[in-house]
Amino acid sequence: MSGNDYTPDTARQLSREVRRQAREGELTDITLNLAPGIVQGNVAILPKDWAADFLKFCWANPRPCPLLAVSEPGDPMLPRLGDDIDIRTDLPMYRVFRDGVMDTDMQDIRNLWQDDFVTFVLGCSFSFDEALRDANIPPRHLQLGLSTAMYRTNIEAISAGPFKGTYVVSMRPYKPADAIRAIQVTSRFPNVHGAPLYFGDPAEIGIRDITKPDFGDVYPVYAGEVPVFWACGVTPQVIIEHAKPPICITHKPSHMLLTDLLNAELAVL
Amino acid sequence: MSGNDYTPDTARQLSREVRRQAREGELTDITLNLAPGIVQGNVAILPKDWAADFLKFCWANPRPCPLLAVSEPGDPMLPRLGDDIDIRTDLPMYRVFRDGVMDTDMQDIRNLWQDDFVTFVLGCSFSFDEALRDANIPPRHLQLGLSTAMYRTNIEAISAGPFKGTYVVSMRPYKPADAIRAIQVTSRFPNVHGAPLYFGDPAEIGIRDITKPDFGDVYPVYAGEVPVFWACGVTPQVIIEHAKPPICITHKPSHMLLTDLLNAELAVL
Repeated sequence: MSGNDYTPDTARQLSREVRRQAREGELTDITLNLAPGIVQGNVAILPKDWAADFLKFCWANPRPCPLLAVSEPGDPMLPRLGDDIDIRTDLPMYRVFRDGVMDTDMQDIRNLWQDDFVTFVLGCSFSFDEALRDANIPPRHLQLGLSTAMYRTNIEAISAGPFKGTYVVSMRPYKPADAIRAIQVTSRFPNVHGAPLYFGDPAEIGIRDITKPDFGDVYPVYAGEVPVFWACGVTPQVIIEHAKPPICITHKPSHMLLTDLLNAELAVL
Repeated sequence: MSGNDYTPDTARQLSREVRRQAREGELTDITLNLAPGIVQGNVAILPKDWAADFLKFCWANPRPCPLLAVSEPGDPMLPRLGDDIDIRTDLPMYRVFRDGVMDTDMQDIRNLWQDDFVTFVLGCSFSFDEALRDANIPPRHLQLGLSTAMYRTNIEAISAGPFKGTYVVSMRPYKPADAIRAIQVTSRFPNVHGAPLYFGDPAEIGIRDITKPDFGDVYPVYAGEVPVFWACGVTPQVIIEHAKPPICITHKPSHMLLTDLLNAELAVL
């Protein structure tokens, strides 16, 4: 489906179908390019005792942790993001951390669900990557069918209780004129990381080797281009690892929650 | 006057007073910082035979030539910019070009006025410099009390009839994070040059030596900063010199037309 046939209703139907497939165990794959136009979210599930500090952390660090929804304790539903979203089943793959250490990946978490679990859904750069592509400045990783290159930095997050550490950033290379346009385009999407944090010399933000991302894939920065760095949704995952809650469940990277929201609805300008 | 006492009405009164002083010959100085909040304009006056092509040139090159007003042929008034603006007297200093060559500077042009003169008023970076200062990222030249450094480039303007040539740009050095903010701030002002065209290596846009501006003052780019380049209102002046109309009258650089418009009224977002 594309062109005039592809309406917001079509996108939402597609998104519900993706969630249904995830729920039934038919889909365990990454969600890139599924249901174009639909907001996909990063997920973090924490016990209530840890949730207040994590909420404060997200509020204090909106660039890496733009909050789209917070559930009621123990309630697996996310009505703010869609009618029928059950966070226990609707992700293609989950990742479970115990005491900050990755324990296992699983297809649903009904057996792990606790009455005190609070779900956080954070905006994801898939949304602004789509906007960049629509603006005819497609990010290189999309063109190459790769994940974004992501790097640990020395940019300190504002801490909240046990949640502290440094930002992870994603990188997209652009010529300066296109970088200016990319800054404009992504400024419209503060709910999905917004404008870049930085561009230029990677060493300035503590990245030693641009050819060795800490997460994701590697791709070249050509002569005449500058690397442009956006705050990344992997940041909270790294922060949670440091905080070592007894249990935390996230999406498996790139296996996102599909919502009923449209990227176009997130644009502020 | 400042703070709560300084209203839009105060700014407009101040602007009218500046025009009155220019009209009476009491003010022949540069207009930087006179009537804060008020839109100041670049001026070019051409015979009607040349005006249609120049209008097309401005329309085709809105970054260096953002048109705020075009007069009726022979009419010295500019009602779009203010009630009482007489372009023959209301600039502090004029510059007269004959056959593209600078001829003389003068305080008023009543004696030179022709029935076929068309006045063009173009937006000026004074407006967005004010916005940058208000955003707490003041351009260095303002902090040092200097004019912007301006450079000829190899960026080709879209030509219209005899009007052709390359862009002149102004340069403001910023750290990358501040440059991103400066791109956001100036994007709100497309009527006064808008977002930058380029940042980074000056050689890429044909600037051989950043320490030797072609116009204006020189100031340093410190380590950790990038030079950021905006299209500049000196461009039309250079273009007019190349086109060699029999007569053209402009403002003397930095001796601008003060209008009754507010910078805040030009912001699009």
